Amino acid sequence: MRALSGSSSLTAALLLLLSAGFHVVALKTPHLLGRHRATRSFSQQGTVFYKTLYFEQQIDHFGFLENGTFKQRFLFNDEHWHQKNGPILFYTGNEGDITWFCNNTGFMWDTAEELGALLIFAEHRYYGESLPFGDESYSNAKYLNYLTSEQALADFAVLIENLKKSFPGAQNSPVIAIGGSYGGMLSAWLRMKYPSVVIGALAASAPIWQFTDMVPCGDFYKIVTQDFANSGINCSKNIRRSWMAVNNVSSTEEGLQWLYKEFGLCSPLKEEDVGGFKGWLQETWVNLAMVDYPYEANFLQPLPRWPIKVVCSHLQFDTGVSDKQLLHGIAQAVKVYYNYTGSAVCLNTSQTATGSLGFRGWFYQACTEMVMPMCTDGIQDMFEPQVWNFQAFSDECYEIFGVRPREHWAGSVYGGKNIGSHSNIVFSNGGLDPWMSGGVTKNLSDSLVAIVIPDGAHHLDLRYNNEYDPQTVVRARALEVQYFKQWIKHSTLTR
Amino acid sequence: MRALSGSSSLTAALLLLLSAGFHVVALKTPHLLGRHRATRSFSQQGTVFYKTLYFEQQIDHFGFLENGTFKQRFLFNDEHWHQKNGPILFYTGNEGDITWFCNNTGFMWDTAEELGALLIFAEHRYYGESLPFGDESYSNAKYLNYLTSEQALADFAVLIENLKKSFPGAQNSPVIAIGGSYGGMLSAWLRMKYPSVVIGALAASAPIWQFTDMVPCGDFYKIVTQDFANSGINCSKNIRRSWMAVNNVSSTEEGLQWLYKEFGLCSPLKEEDVGGFKGWLQETWVNLAMVDYPYEANFLQPLPRWPIKVVCSHLQFDTGVSDKQLLHGIAQAVKVYYNYTGSAVCLNTSQTATGSLGFRGWFYQACTEMVMPMCTDGIQDMFEPQVWNFQAFSDECYEIFGVRPREHWAGSVYGGKNIGSHSNIVFSNGGLDPWMSGGVTKNLSDSLVAIVIPDGAHHLDLRYNNEYDPQTVVRARALEVQYFKQWIKHSTLTR
Repeated sequence: MRALSGSSSLTAALLLLLSAGFHVVALKTPHLLGRHRATRSFSQQGTVFYKTLYFEQQIDHFGFLENGTFKQRFLFNDEHWHQKNGPILFYTGNEGDITWFCNNTGFMWDTAEELGALLIFAEHRYYGESLPFGDESYSNAKYLNYLTSEQALADFAVLIENLKKSFPGAQNSPVIAIGGSYGGMLSAWLRMKYPSVVIGALAASAPIWQFTDMVPCGDFYKIVTQDFANSGINCSKNIRRSWMAVNNVSSTEEGLQWLYKEFGLCSPLKEEDVGGFKGWLQETWVNLAMVDYPYEANFLQPLPRWPIKVVCSHLQFDTGVSDKQLLHGIAQAVKVYYNYTGSAVCLNTSQTATGSLGFRGWFYQACTEMVMPMCTDGIQDMFEPQVWNFQAFSDECYEIFGVRPREHWAGSVYGGKNIGSHSNIVFSNGGLDPWMSGGVTKNLSDSLVAIVIPDGAHHLDLRYNNEYDPQTVVRARALEVQYFKQWIKHSTLTR
Repeated sequence: MRALSGSSSLTAALLLLLSAGFHVVALKTPHLLGRHRATRSFSQQGTVFYKTLYFEQQIDHFGFLENGTFKQRFLFNDEHWHQKNGPILFYTGNEGDITWFCNNTGFMWDTAEELGALLIFAEHRYYGESLPFGDESYSNAKYLNYLTSEQALADFAVLIENLKKSFPGAQNSPVIAIGGSYGGMLSAWLRMKYPSVVIGALAASAPIWQFTDMVPCGDFYKIVTQDFANSGINCSKNIRRSWMAVNNVSSTEEGLQWLYKEFGLCSPLKEEDVGGFKGWLQETWVNLAMVDYPYEANFLQPLPRWPIKVVCSHLQFDTGVSDKQLLHGIAQAVKVYYNYTGSAVCLNTSQTATGSLGFRGWFYQACTEMVMPMCTDGIQDMFEPQVWNFQAFSDECYEIFGVRPREHWAGSVYGGKNIGSHSNIVFSNGGLDPWMSGGVTKNLSDSLVAIVIPDGAHHLDLRYNNEYDPQTVVRARALEVQYFKQWIKHSTLTR
């Protein structure tokens, strides 16, 4: 899941994206979810084992003319599930390969033993191997038509019902939905729309309110800015100044050459690339804000612990320095992100993260339902001012995908701010995570509970336990498990 | 809404139906909803006034390739709505012309003054004037693809949101959904799926559990039988015997002639018509069970008060009489239904009720989502035995519409019997109404409340107050209004 920043370079970025297939390309937009290829063993964790299974799903749950089916992949671990009608923790897959989520949601593995839980990780349609029309799934607008969150939720609901029917001893198992980022939104929505299939949901770093007229469009980038402002003296100020410095320096041929060398770019910078170059820088800062974890981790990139602090150590000089001095610092800072291991030969401005996620799919979703307005003003944030222009965005979506986004639909179908009548959802948020801007950060009722982890980045709570975990995330996880137990107990009593 | 009885004559009936356009034709299935053309003045009521308005709806809420819109009709009355943010009673239209429902839901008109409520009656897509593809809407499977309850609910949700935004003083108005029969199911489902738009729902005679594996398929016809058994000595017994008598008498040419004359049919009875003739009789008994109202009414047909009692007065003879004596009684009984006014020239076996409802649409819905198994055994009910055969039904649907029903989908999407986590729904049921078989007849929680009106037929509570109303329906309506007030009060407090 990526956020949108205005729409100035969207068309170009998307066209590049589409032509690039599944490769990651530069977009002037941040990621929501940290992305890296799944690893099966971590220093702080054991290897995870799972079975891979497939379930026959309707391509179209909401119409009957298209009666075809496809194989939805899901992963399955029952090593801790020994008791009849024991609980099931169900990961509502988001926009990527489900094995990647499976390997990056250590919280579920850590919790399975304590709860005696069966683990299921269900892949989201159109991502990973769960392609409704196989390799052709992205080939035209007709095939893409079934890529919506409503269809994905229906997949999850039908899958859960069938698993409970077919898996011996699971008939009365209480199921809890768990997800992070867009997957967290799906967890919350699954509980809202299909409370018959899940007794509760943990929606981690899930910006369910990052939609039109729900939250100010500038809050996202304000949080990014705060992260840098709080991580070193003059840090955000120097980044704010850097855009003009790039403009100034790049205005001459010599300056373009200098930037190319100073940043160690893979290809020379041309005048027409400057916009993309600034977009790449912006996305780098956003990505850092999302993965500002308290320990070494390899999420979007291999990074040191508290990476923004390290980045800011290169940007603490006085704000009166020359443009080139300033940009020298920026180059050093950026290399913390792109070359922490020291193995990068050069920096590629068409890439901000490694990953196995489906960008094409996510952009289609952004161009239909998942319209998340973003804007910057350069005053309350450290970025170049950019307004949110829905019409321009819509026109670009139409040009690329042949569809137009519906600005208010997500609010209508998922209830917007008016969700108080639902129950049993924990919304967890990281105080460092820009996506907290669209999250539920205050309790809405006794059973719609918000947790804020002040020193947590993007769904830190869903990661494995780690010796460097701040106490706030330790407590958050404990509270989450406490809610799980309460829901399970209640469901057992009322069964 | 019609129920299905096995599937023996479904194909023929549906083909006839389709070729007959919107005309009412004989089907071996009962109606759910009483049907007659709207009248603007009743003896016991004043004239109703409303404005007719149209709202631009997406044809497809759940996909973005079809981006066309259509005009959804809705009716509107604000004569009692004088207070800012006063309540709105919203009728969730079912399978027919909305003006007909508007004129036959006196309860809303009676209640508007007490609550100072705005009244809205919203037409269901594909019925009345709300045709997504105009006159072509039923012309092919592609155009019919958007006829689903989910799309209809989305229409209602989007309409309500827009009305509240655009109607001065309605921005914070609490909205209550009201509907009967399939419309009642939609009211309940609207509250379940879109609790952000309606604070509560009255689902009158709404068989939300009349689906596969939720209730016994024979209950519907058992209730019909009880109504006759309780309305006169030997009444249901003689009807049970009548099927064999028809078989016997119709086995000769003379017998066919005799039946033709005895029943005063409009056209001679042929050997191949005998199945249809029995289906017509069966549907007549079912219709009578639905409209067994305590006062003269013109719903499916003009009828006396407590019409089944009058019918049974012709069937109280000893069960040992001859076939022709028995069928003479049946003919007299049937004429109570078809010729109470004495103006019928002859009886048309391809017609069981007048009405302005969309049968084609309802059959499409039955052939997709609204799969309601029905069966008879001739022992616990007074009908010829007929099993429920889903596969045969599915094959016939495919032959007619090119789509196959999904047996379990309604259960998955609307939660089946597991709906206890929802809130603020009153399910009212008539003890005489066969559709009570699929209704919620026991409280599920403090705010999921069941009301049974023992001497009520099909959504009697939604009709105008009447001097002959039994106390049970008077109390039911009072209780319903009490819940409305409670919901409104609570929503005002928490706003």
